[in-house]
Amino acid sequence: MALLQYNHFVSYHFFMPRLQISRRGQSVIASPIRKFLPLLQAAQKRGVEVYKLNTGDPDIAVPPLFFKTLKQYNSPNLPYAPTPGFPSHVNAWIQYYKQFGVRLEPNNIIPTVGCAEAILLALMAVADDGDEILVFEPLYVSYKSFSVMIGVKLVPIPLSAENNFALPSMNVLQAKVTAKTKAIVVINPDNPTGKLWSDEELSHVVRFAKINNLFVVADETYREIRFVGKASCLLADSESHNNTIVIDSVSKRFSMPGARVGCVVSYNEEVMGAVLKFAQARLSVGTLEQFALDSLIKQSKKITAPIRKEYQARRDIVYSALSAMPGVTCSKPDGAFYIIAKLPVESAEEFVKWLIRDFTYKNHSVMVSPIADFYITPGRGKDEIRIAYVLKIPLLKKAMEVLSKGLEAYGHRK
Amino acid sequence: MALLQYNHFVSYHFFMPRLQISRRGQSVIASPIRKFLPLLQAAQKRGVEVYKLNTGDPDIAVPPLFFKTLKQYNSPNLPYAPTPGFPSHVNAWIQYYKQFGVRLEPNNIIPTVGCAEAILLALMAVADDGDEILVFEPLYVSYKSFSVMIGVKLVPIPLSAENNFALPSMNVLQAKVTAKTKAIVVINPDNPTGKLWSDEELSHVVRFAKINNLFVVADETYREIRFVGKASCLLADSESHNNTIVIDSVSKRFSMPGARVGCVVSYNEEVMGAVLKFAQARLSVGTLEQFALDSLIKQSKKITAPIRKEYQARRDIVYSALSAMPGVTCSKPDGAFYIIAKLPVESAEEFVKWLIRDFTYKNHSVMVSPIADFYITPGRGKDEIRIAYVLKIPLLKKAMEVLSKGLEAYGHRK
Repeated sequence: MALLQYNHFVSYHFFMPRLQISRRGQSVIASPIRKFLPLLQAAQKRGVEVYKLNTGDPDIAVPPLFFKTLKQYNSPNLPYAPTPGFPSHVNAWIQYYKQFGVRLEPNNIIPTVGCAEAILLALMAVADDGDEILVFEPLYVSYKSFSVMIGVKLVPIPLSAENNFALPSMNVLQAKVTAKTKAIVVINPDNPTGKLWSDEELSHVVRFAKINNLFVVADETYREIRFVGKASCLLADSESHNNTIVIDSVSKRFSMPGARVGCVVSYNEEVMGAVLKFAQARLSVGTLEQFALDSLIKQSKKITAPIRKEYQARRDIVYSALSAMPGVTCSKPDGAFYIIAKLPVESAEEFVKWLIRDFTYKNHSVMVSPIADFYITPGRGKDEIRIAYVLKIPLLKKAMEVLSKGLEAYGHRK
Repeated sequence: MALLQYNHFVSYHFFMPRLQISRRGQSVIASPIRKFLPLLQAAQKRGVEVYKLNTGDPDIAVPPLFFKTLKQYNSPNLPYAPTPGFPSHVNAWIQYYKQFGVRLEPNNIIPTVGCAEAILLALMAVADDGDEILVFEPLYVSYKSFSVMIGVKLVPIPLSAENNFALPSMNVLQAKVTAKTKAIVVINPDNPTGKLWSDEELSHVVRFAKINNLFVVADETYREIRFVGKASCLLADSESHNNTIVIDSVSKRFSMPGARVGCVVSYNEEVMGAVLKFAQARLSVGTLEQFALDSLIKQSKKITAPIRKEYQARRDIVYSALSAMPGVTCSKPDGAFYIIAKLPVESAEEFVKWLIRDFTYKNHSVMVSPIADFYITPGRGKDEIRIAYVLKIPLLKKAMEVLSKGLEAYGHRK
């Protein structure tokens, strides 16, 4: 081996930039939902009981069928799954989608590591570095991080609680379109607002997308968790077939985000071809979870009916409790298990930190998410929080009491 | 809602590009390992028994402790794991790394969805769109796909079987460096070549990286599968601390790629900060697998010793068999479970397709990977295949016989 004459390029050295991470690594933000983990752990260490309403992590038990099926896994091996998914798993999804009037072939579905990876793969399939994607804000924050990671610019269409997060006029949407716009994202039911998109709104979004040759990324992770009307899928609208990419996940409807199983669903062959090739690079989705999920996916209707009722009851409690707190305003959500509340504070982030660090009521505190980071427009949402109602009703009531007492004490602190 | 006056912007319509997927979606290649799945399935449907030597999917049984521990999971819930991993899981990794003289704190490790996601997150942490990363070719093909997905240019440093894939002179490396170069990747032991990097070579790479302010992405997925010397970790070299990012995985050492658990390990705080924030966007790694892996990770030495011996015996058989085939040349690998063979054919891809579609020997065929796509330099590797020796010895011998007969028949076909 001809070894290096290091002294030859000492001279280069002075012109080289210092060792530094990427710009995307520098600019991606910490999750506003997850960044307070160290504060939470510190509070727990001090013996404080914390009601956790920050993460969309359901407290509801996983359908026992999952663990029962899992125990039936009897291979001594744990091989990769095929990238397009185990055939039985994909067939379970095909069965599942029929109830929404959506008829799929295996090549219309690719399993993903939760809805999160489905989002990442879908965004990459439709947009390149420098391209733009329209989103409604406030927005589930992972979209923001992913877009920074892949160099895509999110262009916000502001919604507001004052008019129940209604779709703005088409002129407002149209004004956001440039030659670089590639897609529009609709989360239905929505995280973080709990908004349920009306059929009329959805058909306007689809028409807008078609006219502008945009993809519609329809994130239907919370599909069955809605308190008005019936669960549906945008792919049932044959008008949207070529444009729509559905993001799905078992995490919320089966209360099992730790399974990390979701999927991308689309009739667009080019999209599915790209998603498959992207997905091949990371090989496969968990073998055990795919195996154990098949029967749940096929029985989703039975499983999700009581869950929907439970969340509806919780929604009523949280909405009433918040509405009764002085200075707090919120819009009544019709789906998912989130609610956004506008608080009588200057900085919700400071309030959230104060709650977890400095406040207890009967030795309890409560953890919620400040949501300024769920917005793209600077300055919006500074006094807002997102509450995930993922606690049983008695605990939820107590958590609301702690929040109320916390707000009161925060107003009186010096 | 002020509805759309569609006729207002019919005029826009004609200037909009047609609905089309991203350039990255168009240019990412199908996995040369996975793209023949449909041909394989067709052969199996015809009743042909196919020896599968294409995927790095070990046939060796998963250590039974894994399934035993899995059965002890007794929560009714399946929550997200913390993004930085369950503390017990991270502690298992910390224990594991001690045997290689690497002392870690929890914030030096972030669990990932297999080594694949670790690669993606590490590449994103060090390079932006348009940046360059040095790699040795032939190269594990997922690096190529990921780089297309995130807009990073891979700059190849050609290695060749003729001199056992030895590290070229530092001048060769230095000539590849531009102001956009951010990192160099070393896979050790290497996939697809089976090359084991010598300590001397590694220290040259580290020195080269430090002089040029590059990160070293050290992919040590096959760490324990080496037939010379002792398993090691580049992080034991304190010289490289700030520059090195280790990619790791349980997939190969514990024969469980279906678990989808790996990790990123680095002492560089900026890197780990970025990786954590990227990882927060996709939330977490499988809860069940993290739980069930802790005790395996702690007992890795006991588990990997017999596995290493088994692969060594297989390596000997495959190497001898290939060396005895007329016109076939190969370099004897010292690690991982792959070997590259140069075949007396014009196009290994055509040969591989022919084998699976048109050839049987005693009703058997064999599936291997053509590796032109493992190269970045156009034209290289067209007559080469990668064999993954992931079958038990008796089957492996038969598979080699089928390959030999196939080559013979292919030479005589008209």
